[in-house]
Amino acid sequence: MAGLDLKRLGELGLIEAVRRRAQSSRAAGAWLKGIGDDAAVLRPRAGCDLVVTSDALIEDVHFRWRTTDAGSLGRKALAVNLSDVAAMGARPLGFLLAWGLPEDARPEAVEGVLGGLLAQARAAGCPLVGGDTVRAPAWMLTVTAFGEVARGRALLRSGAKPGDRVLVSGDIGGSALGLAALESGAAARPGLAPFVRRHLRPAPPWRSGPLLARARFVHAAIDLSDGLLRDLGHVAEESGVRLRLDVERLPLARGLRARAAELGLDPLGLALAGGEDYELALCVAARAPGVNELARRFQCRLTEIGVVERGRGVVCQRADVSFEPASYPFEHFKPVYDRSEK
Amino acid sequence: MAGLDLKRLGELGLIEAVRRRAQSSRAAGAWLKGIGDDAAVLRPRAGCDLVVTSDALIEDVHFRWRTTDAGSLGRKALAVNLSDVAAMGARPLGFLLAWGLPEDARPEAVEGVLGGLLAQARAAGCPLVGGDTVRAPAWMLTVTAFGEVARGRALLRSGAKPGDRVLVSGDIGGSALGLAALESGAAARPGLAPFVRRHLRPAPPWRSGPLLARARFVHAAIDLSDGLLRDLGHVAEESGVRLRLDVERLPLARGLRARAAELGLDPLGLALAGGEDYELALCVAARAPGVNELARRFQCRLTEIGVVERGRGVVCQRADVSFEPASYPFEHFKPVYDRSEK
Repeated sequence: MAGLDLKRLGELGLIEAVRRRAQSSRAAGAWLKGIGDDAAVLRPRAGCDLVVTSDALIEDVHFRWRTTDAGSLGRKALAVNLSDVAAMGARPLGFLLAWGLPEDARPEAVEGVLGGLLAQARAAGCPLVGGDTVRAPAWMLTVTAFGEVARGRALLRSGAKPGDRVLVSGDIGGSALGLAALESGAAARPGLAPFVRRHLRPAPPWRSGPLLARARFVHAAIDLSDGLLRDLGHVAEESGVRLRLDVERLPLARGLRARAAELGLDPLGLALAGGEDYELALCVAARAPGVNELARRFQCRLTEIGVVERGRGVVCQRADVSFEPASYPFEHFKPVYDRSEK
Repeated sequence: MAGLDLKRLGELGLIEAVRRRAQSSRAAGAWLKGIGDDAAVLRPRAGCDLVVTSDALIEDVHFRWRTTDAGSLGRKALAVNLSDVAAMGARPLGFLLAWGLPEDARPEAVEGVLGGLLAQARAAGCPLVGGDTVRAPAWMLTVTAFGEVARGRALLRSGAKPGDRVLVSGDIGGSALGLAALESGAAARPGLAPFVRRHLRPAPPWRSGPLLARARFVHAAIDLSDGLLRDLGHVAEESGVRLRLDVERLPLARGLRARAAELGLDPLGLALAGGEDYELALCVAARAPGVNELARRFQCRLTEIGVVERGRGVVCQRADVSFEPASYPFEHFKPVYDRSEK
């Protein structure tokens, strides 16, 4: 891989190189104009609403070059946005990339990040349509993603109702363990590679988004980025309800208990407060089909983890003890200014 | 002004404070959901296309705290995006803010930037609808702006035709002089304040965007951000034409010649290559009304500065000498990786 050398290419040369590479990820139809004008032009489909979301990844805050490869980083920068798009019940349409690069950015890193972004873009049918290329003191990757959803069918955090069942896709806690392994220098220990990979290359169930929006019995959705408790706390707050979780039913990532114990970490803490799972949490009507039927319909693994009640906040239940998560002893996961400070 | 103290508020507290302040700038109608979900939800108007654009401002690359106030910076972060929206012929609809703040960001700076952004948002009817708040090693403000334009009427860089007349709005060169004054420590000298202000608080003619899109005789448009020559070079390239500019007709900012001379700068250099004018350049059909009638119709000052010919690139003409801008001796404006390195 030759790399993209900023000093040789200059800003315009880099933009031109991006434009050439992005051609292959161009969508037909929806975008009348992609890279190469003052703005991209989208023709919305009749009968659809649009969802728009921005997420930024910052060097040494959200990632470290010492522990990630450029391709994974590029994939992740788009994936975390696809996760938000899916949580709205939307189909990805395209994205803008505003990236800041240090003057001495390694050409292989620039090429690798772009390659990862465009590979994820092709996989999701979500073309790069524009953005901004600037110099910055550290790497910053701000992706703005667009999605479409049938008119009035966007899934909000505010739709949960008492009596609803709470579901979560895939498994949780693994990304936080992977991060802990990376940060503590233990990533090379046996059995930790899948968790590290999970952290560096999240694979949100973005295909499930539009399937969720079709089902009238899905009342609310959110993506799990900041940790299950905090994210479900948003659903509780916005819906004006309480969520009661059975912590014994949480779908912990496979091998999480054993590997977490080896690092001296509480697996339940990782699952409840760890963050960066990029799974979906749903509140569905009591009358909705069983979890296996829903998993088939939404094309993702699903686990039922709790119920929606009248009240406020999120409470956890284990056997017949219920407790407020605020009192749960994960001081190393105490809410901090930025989630990546964990 | 009490300020927004990150250490006291935390990330969620800051987001909540932003959400409260943004209420007053919320648009009715178009946005079904603003701040407070995984994504914002836009209902596109029937018969309209959407334009989307991202521009980032980075500390010590695009601005310095030593020379800007927080309110101006906030205004500028949105204004530079409104400029792109207008250049597409679109009306602003709303924006996302992905901002990175150092841990020790001054509360007054956070409050001031947000205040400036929201003041500009109210003025332009362009509400803040979402984004991302992250920690970063330096300030970064990435704004993604949305606009709407009648179906098929977006103004592209690629529509210029031989025979068209080239127009520019407002005046040019002033922002570059203001930047030079700030960077050389001469900003306090008599007569330089208007140029400094022009640099710190650009006022793009965003109201003109939708008026341009209505006129069938406007063939191409671009906003002037990187310098007249470079920006018109994009029009020439995308349209497959040559632009011939009469440099004696350029609308230099008032007082530019005298003040530039005092700083040892070439006023024509500032106007041709200076950048950050945030004016509009247009290519209109030869048969279009005269420049005064166009100025009235588009509600902005306009000057005719050249013509479109068959050929490639941009050529400048002064009296009966024409020259290639590449050979024009502005070595201090030599194209560099990032425009703010000038």
